[in-house]
Amino acid sequence: MKVSDGGTVLAADVFSSRCPSRSVLDHVTSKWAVLVLAALAVEPLRFSALRRRIDGVSEKMLAQTLRTLEADGFVDRVVTPTTPPQVTYSLTDLGRGLTGHLTGLLGFIQTRLPEIEAARST
Amino acid sequence: MKVSDGGTVLAADVFSSRCPSRSVLDHVTSKWAVLVLAALAVEPLRFSALRRRIDGVSEKMLAQTLRTLEADGFVDRVVTPTTPPQVTYSLTDLGRGLTGHLTGLLGFIQTRLPEIEAARST
Repeated sequence: MKVSDGGTVLAADVFSSRCPSRSVLDHVTSKWAVLVLAALAVEPLRFSALRRRIDGVSEKMLAQTLRTLEADGFVDRVVTPTTPPQVTYSLTDLGRGLTGHLTGLLGFIQTRLPEIEAARST
Repeated sequence: MKVSDGGTVLAADVFSSRCPSRSVLDHVTSKWAVLVLAALAVEPLRFSALRRRIDGVSEKMLAQTLRTLEADGFVDRVVTPTTPPQVTYSLTDLGRGLTGHLTGLLGFIQTRLPEIEAARST
């Protein structure tokens, strides 16, 4: 990506606090976003199902996380006009690409947990 | 990994708030940890160099992030007994494995930023 900076064109750099990529990083690594994305990678889910899947998330934090991920183009929110309306969340193509990296991270943490716990106890 | 739960053996599950893997996820996706790990993936660095590399991090937050990553076994802290002593941080083997997934994530965010910014402006 290119950021225009007073006439100079710069490549995206998450190490720079002024680069828009830094805020995207903050969003997708926020406390709940990783788990929301990983849950939606398995299947599209309604709000209540997402909340049950992600142990410990509050209604407010889940709603806020979904809004941010939707605004960044990673999550689609589809309303089915039933009575009452059903709202389903799913990954966009961009979200699926992003989440591929996150599920690798989660898999690593889960499978290597014994080594991590061993380090913690020393 | 296996968690003993009242006699039952459970696989690690980051979706469960009681699983130790959840706290590891929280540590490695904390506001600064991703950038610390990505910076150390390039080369071992001293505290002051890390702080310059990661735009916006305070001395306190950097120290706290490094302590947590060291306790989880992802970062090594080596003190060279010069006057004054030099402290260098580097990734452990475990940290290198973890960071492989994070650098993929950072690369994705940086290269796909135009699409993310397009989504934000709609």
